[in-house]
Amino acid sequence: MSDARFEVAPWELRWCGLDLDALQRTESIFALSNGHIGLRGTLDEGEPVGKPGTYLNGFYESRKMPYAEAGYGYPAEGQTVVNVTDGKIIRLLVEDEPMDLRYGTTVEHDRVLDFRSGTLRRSTVWTSPTGRRVRIRSERLVSFTERALAAIRYEVEPLDGDLEVVVQSDLLANEPDPAKPDDPRLAAALDHPLVGECAVARDLSAVLVHHTRRSQLRMAAAMDHEFDVAVATRCDVHAENDLARMTIAAGVPAGDRLCLTKFLAYGWSARRSASALRAQVEAALAAGLEIGWQQLLDRQRAYLDDFWAQADIELDGSPELQQAVRFALFHVLQAGARGEARAIPAKGLTGPGYDGHAFWDTETYVLPVLTYTMPMAAGDALRWRHSTLGQARQRARELGQAGAMFPWRSINGEEASGYWPTATAAVHVNADIADATARYLAATGDEQFETECGVELLVETARLWVSLGHEDSAGDFRIDGVTGPDEYSALADNNIYTNLMAARNLREAAESCTRRPDLAERLGVEPAELTRWRHCADSMYLPYNDELGVHEQSEGFTRYAPWDFAATPPENYPLLLHYPYFDLYRQQVVKQADLVLAMYLCPNAFSRDQKIRNFEYYDPLTVRDSSLSACTQAVLAAEIGHLALAYDYFREAAFTDLHDLHHDVAAGVHIASVAGTWISCVGGFGGMRDHDGDLGFAPRLPEQLNRLCFRILWHGSRISVHITAESTTYRLESGDSVTLTHHGRRITLTDSPVDLPNPTATAGAAAE
Amino acid sequence: MSDARFEVAPWELRWCGLDLDALQRTESIFALSNGHIGLRGTLDEGEPVGKPGTYLNGFYESRKMPYAEAGYGYPAEGQTVVNVTDGKIIRLLVEDEPMDLRYGTTVEHDRVLDFRSGTLRRSTVWTSPTGRRVRIRSERLVSFTERALAAIRYEVEPLDGDLEVVVQSDLLANEPDPAKPDDPRLAAALDHPLVGECAVARDLSAVLVHHTRRSQLRMAAAMDHEFDVAVATRCDVHAENDLARMTIAAGVPAGDRLCLTKFLAYGWSARRSASALRAQVEAALAAGLEIGWQQLLDRQRAYLDDFWAQADIELDGSPELQQAVRFALFHVLQAGARGEARAIPAKGLTGPGYDGHAFWDTETYVLPVLTYTMPMAAGDALRWRHSTLGQARQRARELGQAGAMFPWRSINGEEASGYWPTATAAVHVNADIADATARYLAATGDEQFETECGVELLVETARLWVSLGHEDSAGDFRIDGVTGPDEYSALADNNIYTNLMAARNLREAAESCTRRPDLAERLGVEPAELTRWRHCADSMYLPYNDELGVHEQSEGFTRYAPWDFAATPPENYPLLLHYPYFDLYRQQVVKQADLVLAMYLCPNAFSRDQKIRNFEYYDPLTVRDSSLSACTQAVLAAEIGHLALAYDYFREAAFTDLHDLHHDVAAGVHIASVAGTWISCVGGFGGMRDHDGDLGFAPRLPEQLNRLCFRILWHGSRISVHITAESTTYRLESGDSVTLTHHGRRITLTDSPVDLPNPTATAGAAAE
Repeated sequence: MSDARFEVAPWELRWCGLDLDALQRTESIFALSNGHIGLRGTLDEGEPVGKPGTYLNGFYESRKMPYAEAGYGYPAEGQTVVNVTDGKIIRLLVEDEPMDLRYGTTVEHDRVLDFRSGTLRRSTVWTSPTGRRVRIRSERLVSFTERALAAIRYEVEPLDGDLEVVVQSDLLANEPDPAKPDDPRLAAALDHPLVGECAVARDLSAVLVHHTRRSQLRMAAAMDHEFDVAVATRCDVHAENDLARMTIAAGVPAGDRLCLTKFLAYGWSARRSASALRAQVEAALAAGLEIGWQQLLDRQRAYLDDFWAQADIELDGSPELQQAVRFALFHVLQAGARGEARAIPAKGLTGPGYDGHAFWDTETYVLPVLTYTMPMAAGDALRWRHSTLGQARQRARELGQAGAMFPWRSINGEEASGYWPTATAAVHVNADIADATARYLAATGDEQFETECGVELLVETARLWVSLGHEDSAGDFRIDGVTGPDEYSALADNNIYTNLMAARNLREAAESCTRRPDLAERLGVEPAELTRWRHCADSMYLPYNDELGVHEQSEGFTRYAPWDFAATPPENYPLLLHYPYFDLYRQQVVKQADLVLAMYLCPNAFSRDQKIRNFEYYDPLTVRDSSLSACTQAVLAAEIGHLALAYDYFREAAFTDLHDLHHDVAAGVHIASVAGTWISCVGGFGGMRDHDGDLGFAPRLPEQLNRLCFRILWHGSRISVHITAESTTYRLESGDSVTLTHHGRRITLTDSPVDLPNPTATAGAAAE
Repeated sequence: MSDARFEVAPWELRWCGLDLDALQRTESIFALSNGHIGLRGTLDEGEPVGKPGTYLNGFYESRKMPYAEAGYGYPAEGQTVVNVTDGKIIRLLVEDEPMDLRYGTTVEHDRVLDFRSGTLRRSTVWTSPTGRRVRIRSERLVSFTERALAAIRYEVEPLDGDLEVVVQSDLLANEPDPAKPDDPRLAAALDHPLVGECAVARDLSAVLVHHTRRSQLRMAAAMDHEFDVAVATRCDVHAENDLARMTIAAGVPAGDRLCLTKFLAYGWSARRSASALRAQVEAALAAGLEIGWQQLLDRQRAYLDDFWAQADIELDGSPELQQAVRFALFHVLQAGARGEARAIPAKGLTGPGYDGHAFWDTETYVLPVLTYTMPMAAGDALRWRHSTLGQARQRARELGQAGAMFPWRSINGEEASGYWPTATAAVHVNADIADATARYLAATGDEQFETECGVELLVETARLWVSLGHEDSAGDFRIDGVTGPDEYSALADNNIYTNLMAARNLREAAESCTRRPDLAERLGVEPAELTRWRHCADSMYLPYNDELGVHEQSEGFTRYAPWDFAATPPENYPLLLHYPYFDLYRQQVVKQADLVLAMYLCPNAFSRDQKIRNFEYYDPLTVRDSSLSACTQAVLAAEIGHLALAYDYFREAAFTDLHDLHHDVAAGVHIASVAGTWISCVGGFGGMRDHDGDLGFAPRLPEQLNRLCFRILWHGSRISVHITAESTTYRLESGDSVTLTHHGRRITLTDSPVDLPNPTATAGAAAE
């Protein structure tokens, strides 16, 4: 846990000094995004670079999916996020020497991600190989308020007398990537993916329009500039196929500085022409210049002030965790803010990891956070799912099922997984979408969403379960041959997580149809279908091992051979890189919380005693080779009173990216894991549960924390929950009164705060 | 069943007339092979052609295996059989017109595969587009006695006066294939796979030497010619990179004929140089010319006379089945005869199906036939397996197991499967190899083989099971997460077939070590290991459903949803082309005999009542999408007295290729299915069982057959079994006395035949 290099501070993340080996890691951590545009935290001057990256949400290239042995229903094409035209680059020539931190001397070099200003600042003092010293300051933002805009303020200050400088501000398409993918076919698909269509330059501005070869998506990037320099300056701008460049040559007197502001606009479309897209980005740019740098900064800060007022988590006891929690919330915001009916990818727009695909992580880990902190963003993400319902219905037909089958991984709604046993077979994604839908509806009462999307999502996923499962001779409803969250088990029967979530899906669909008979009729739901859904839910089979007194993650799981942990050296983790699936699937080893996740999301299906016994059985089997695991384990450990363990898991979730615990943050921030940091706090130490439309808390703090405070939006009302070791204070900060429970006790929160004692925490089995 | 086009005759297979659409089909059926060289039954003149094919056993090209999502232990390279230099081509020019059956008029066109001469004869009368009429006769053989040799006798006879003809006899490498593989990567790997190294021509002979690009195997093909023609003739021979050609221009007077004999020699090696290989084929050719055409024919016939004396099955009641049985035996012979420590591929050397790979089919379906009819060939095939033991040990290490793990599909001993759930997970292949080893040892007493290969094969496979399985708390030995023979179920627990065959493997290994303590010591087998093997075998778990009173193919299978056969239209078979594995694996649908195969191979593990109940449960679930199924179902149906059903399954097995029941004989003859024709007769109607070293028969004929007679070699003794409706006559035809059972009654067969009555057949459950 000691691989931190970031300096601890409550509202910012700072990395001092130059570390070329950490470039990729910091580029992900320092990535800026508004959910629509994503800019990795590369250095202004373009090089040295770990992995360049500029992303537009939903913009991808298609590629053929190769199979050594193909099978029916395997996706023929996959999708991969594309590094689009890079507008971040501002190169500098210092008296004949290109500014490049690999040469000369880097005297100072600080980078700061500021959670309140929503900007990435950089300050470098550099001595060129020929001995000239300059200070470069830059600040970069991707605007939360102006979705198509990003901007960079760039300053050069001579530190040792008058200085001749040349600044080149670029738009660069088909940027070379020094860190090519391992897979040569993927590398080929991403080698020069953009075909130029239009390159124009005028005054201080330029536009490049490109389209992708196979997917035939079109994008435009535009830049314009403002600068002031006291002395004589030469300017030039030109554009060619893959490059547009604005060049300034200036003499900067000692004591003065060259200050350049670069405005960037991006847009993409599958339908609009090159000229329409050019017009779009030129218009966005005109708006940006009219707003101006300072106003963009001000609006960004105001937006973040609102966000923090609504979403901040304060904790006393660990400044490093305080920072990590805000870092986490900031990246959840960046991933979810302005997606606007596009997917929230597993890495957000911070890197090319997982090919830029969205998974069930979004619904199960990210949307709970957004639902209670930025409900509109949660609704938008579910609207994206709804927009792909046609493809999901088609996929269900292709696979012989009723209703809808959503893809395991996708950018555009089409299944893009090339290994079905832990993808197509992981049908729980459909229940996860339904669960997020029901939770969003329960927390917001958003009737427009319910009418346009919600009921239909619930109904079409419910229909899937009826066709996937069947009743056996004992009257149990069984769902065989599926894969649950644990990817070290596959094609198992009656995975409890899947079965419980399917039962909830069926009940929520039935309830939504009862609530909205108009929509039920439009969707062709007959009363008999409602009865069937409820019956299937009620007879859902949950395997249990009487001898051991624990539930079985899937039927038969507890009879499998125990994994030989003693014979597994530390360097053999993650196991999937050192053992075949064949051997992992046959043994009792769990990649990530599965039954434990079921106990969190469906708490009423288990007695407290069962939760304790199940947790104590499965926790030691769980190797946490997935970043999705620690937060769930934190929640359950907290619930059953293992608060010290819960705290450890909370730290693991919180430091996954900051300490690069999985050695892969280079490819992007784990958005589900940063969301899991919120879940650890709110679901774990806050004990928040939101099943069946009820909001409840059961706060309990580990001894390392003196205080924890978080906020929740519930039907438009904002409440704060302030937890100390002794008591919890609930406060209605805005909106109508809210009814909730505190450790099972029902209270209605109106104008006055309510302070209630926390029961004494008792650990695990001892509590029984 | 009425798609037969072959004329019915006891000792030959004749196809009359030209049918361009049936070209690929007849090329497979008419393929000639001696297990070392394979020539598809293409027309002499090269075109029209369905799929050209000349194969050398073990000669392959490597190719990269592509994965959409790779995993630990996935094979990086696969192997694909290569169409090597084609020496079959003899082109004819009839007065300026190339003889091509697609032009002019085909007046007569007969092709005959002769099971006694071991040759493919052809007779064509053709009128050229300009009206000249000729008869072409050819006869082709691949020598069983001279392993490196093939030969063709080719005659042209003018039917309407003196005729100018040109005959071109070719060796053609990198032959174009009009029927390219669907998979573009496979097509690329096989596009011009051969790199020329040497091309020489002299007198009437020529040699071409090539090597493959990636696998770096080297091959040589050589041809020489003899001809006699009454009149003036011009001859020419030349060789270039991929082509050698001997040309004769001749005037053939009316009433005379041009008669050409072409001798072909083939050789390949992974080690020998181009000049060594050239020398090898030139030497083989010299021997061939010295032997001469007539002697080759005579030796071929003598070889086949011996074979038929030893292997023939006679049956009365269906001439078409009599023909099919001999066709089947002929192809088993062709596949197995002279492999000599090379694999016997699933398609023999008759086509490129399954990439030329060998599977478990060889041990479980083909070797039983060879063990009792050509034991030396069975021993050779097992010696091939033994020669790959190093790779199998390495594979076991890679996958974290002890002992050896043989590949699911391979040419060179390396795993070449690109879909592990029905390949690497189908670990039963190891027990199948052990079973074939034990059966071969029991039937032959071949001590040299036991010393050199047998015990080691048994020991290393036994070690695998101990590491794959584990004992649960109830003391049951479980083998979880494996795939049995039924490929519509995968990654199941305690597949009965696998568990029973593993138990046999463990016992046979223990017995072999007890029998041969010297070898046990050399292999490091301690007494405790023997005890462990026996204990695991004795506590092997066999799942049983008490409620239904049937065994479970795998644990939980009988609780799966029944497949909806009523909703499955005939055009949706084979199911794997119309339904995803995801859905097939989760339901009660069986691709091919699995539990039923276990009841055949391990008959003592089931009571008669269990066999009846199991058969009646599983038979309707079995869709026979695999050609491996019908013969096994025939055997069990016969055993439990469903003789009419057994007869139907026997016909299905026998006509699989002749009637092209699976619509894929174009890619080659199903060697396991033709072997299954023998199994249907001998194991089904003959009721032969050979478990535990005992030889027993329980003959029972269906009413459609009046008589069935077959022969068995047992420790070098040949016995014949002559079955009529009423009785069975056992006769010792040569060798020492043999002890066997007839319907459980033990007899010792010496010089005099023994005639015993057959019990009255009683069907199924009624018999209880």
